[in-house]
Amino acid sequence: MSDRPAVLIMQRHLGPVTAFLESFCSVYRLWEGPPIEAQADVRAVVVAGEFPLDKDLIGRLPNLRHIACFTAGYDGIDVDWCHARGLTVTHAPGVNHEDVADHAIGLILAARRRIVDGDQKVKDGTWLLDDRLMTRSLKGQKLGIVGLGDIGQAVARRAEPMRMTIAWWGPRVKDSPWPRAPSLLALARESDILMVACRADDTNRGLISAEVIEALGPDGLLVNVARGQLVDEDALITALKDGRLGQAALDVFLDEPTDPARWADVPNAVLTPHTGGATSEAVQGMLMLLVQNLQAVLNGAPAATPVRS
Amino acid sequence: MSDRPAVLIMQRHLGPVTAFLESFCSVYRLWEGPPIEAQADVRAVVVAGEFPLDKDLIGRLPNLRHIACFTAGYDGIDVDWCHARGLTVTHAPGVNHEDVADHAIGLILAARRRIVDGDQKVKDGTWLLDDRLMTRSLKGQKLGIVGLGDIGQAVARRAEPMRMTIAWWGPRVKDSPWPRAPSLLALARESDILMVACRADDTNRGLISAEVIEALGPDGLLVNVARGQLVDEDALITALKDGRLGQAALDVFLDEPTDPARWADVPNAVLTPHTGGATSEAVQGMLMLLVQNLQAVLNGAPAATPVRS
Repeated sequence: MSDRPAVLIMQRHLGPVTAFLESFCSVYRLWEGPPIEAQADVRAVVVAGEFPLDKDLIGRLPNLRHIACFTAGYDGIDVDWCHARGLTVTHAPGVNHEDVADHAIGLILAARRRIVDGDQKVKDGTWLLDDRLMTRSLKGQKLGIVGLGDIGQAVARRAEPMRMTIAWWGPRVKDSPWPRAPSLLALARESDILMVACRADDTNRGLISAEVIEALGPDGLLVNVARGQLVDEDALITALKDGRLGQAALDVFLDEPTDPARWADVPNAVLTPHTGGATSEAVQGMLMLLVQNLQAVLNGAPAATPVRS
Repeated sequence: MSDRPAVLIMQRHLGPVTAFLESFCSVYRLWEGPPIEAQADVRAVVVAGEFPLDKDLIGRLPNLRHIACFTAGYDGIDVDWCHARGLTVTHAPGVNHEDVADHAIGLILAARRRIVDGDQKVKDGTWLLDDRLMTRSLKGQKLGIVGLGDIGQAVARRAEPMRMTIAWWGPRVKDSPWPRAPSLLALARESDILMVACRADDTNRGLISAEVIEALGPDGLLVNVARGQLVDEDALITALKDGRLGQAALDVFLDEPTDPARWADVPNAVLTPHTGGATSEAVQGMLMLLVQNLQAVLNGAPAATPVRS
């Protein structure tokens, strides 16, 4: 075991953080091979919180003390299991929710005002003056927000000047200027646009079920900027094909990257590659929190932004 | 000359309004042939305000009293010329500016957060986890609004909760919560996003010149939801190709429909087919004003929403 603490980065797309950690620890990258010789040095792992944590691997790191999620979300982490083993967990809260909300509004507009379709029409020469692309005004459209956390509230603040009417549902009652629907199903039934903005965990997989999608209906738009697992994606695809759901605008998917063949014959869908929170400013903020948390934990100090049980 | 007053609709895409006028007048449609036998009956023409008024034709209608623009804009109409001939002009103000502003925000988000590109990536299978599409946050981006009328103000109200910083320029000083730049060029130089939202007329053709585009620069985004003629479109295309302008998002063009060949090799452009104000609610509001104005004028009463010299 070396004097210098080591950190193991689990997902390849997090590779670029290496340069920011090397000044205070040794860095191993799982995709370059497991750090067999350094196993005892690894004190922390760095993960993208949406990926399931490899518990077997964790079990083989005798001096591991910390799971550092680069992300705000930590749905891939069994936090209770970690805490029971004496592992602290940190994440990056409050950094990218405003950017995610911007993107969410962009998805509503891209779908409702048919901006993606319109771009296609202009570029492929199918714009005809006598056949103007008409859409419904956003004025008075009922926006139902599932989960009134940081993202949900930021979406609501943006939707108000666009003259949408806002309601929400979440499992817990909260103080808010917007009315809480008695149930998710009631919210879907009352909404023109349903915005999924809640945290994902083991208890709410498939929360947006076939029944919820059906309740949103043939003129409804489902937007998801949270996590793919929250939506019954097969039911969603079927409903779009059958016209039982009007439109979908998705930034997140059950599997990422999602298989394009899955969406080939699906009409009325605007799809973005999980870019809601992927701004350079947000990533910089997440990086700062990661470094802060790792430095604290490696020095035996309390973490800046721990996840609590 | 018949007892029943006649109205002549000039542009084919306005054909659908016929049904709403026939209860109180005879309706002729120019594209079905000039109304030679009814020339003396025509008391009003219905036009889309962005099309140049055919003055020769107007001169051949001896009993014409009124030019009714279906639209809010009336840039195709030489209002002084009409007034000098005793013709009143009406338009449809205050009906669709909020929808245009929604669309304008949609264009900013589609371009800045790369929603159109992202949709393409997901659908063509070029989404790679290791190569995430990263964009700049909208936070703190400087939005320069050209023309702080109804549309410009509605855009500003929407941009504020998105954390953009707002400034504007227009030829006249106005009371507003946002600072007025000393000149259009200064506004372009200071802005990350330049939003063209002013009225078009003979005095401001090509207002967004090569110099203004250059001042906006290689990271800048030009958005136009007003009229195509306000922008030097050739200079814009050249600047996008050269990378001297970062992005453009256009809902209006010099010629409409615009020739797709013109845009085939132009990068970083989001283009929509003049759909900013084309919502069913707005069109219904415009139709109501048209009927109100025509009924008033045909009965010798003052028009509801006249254009003044």
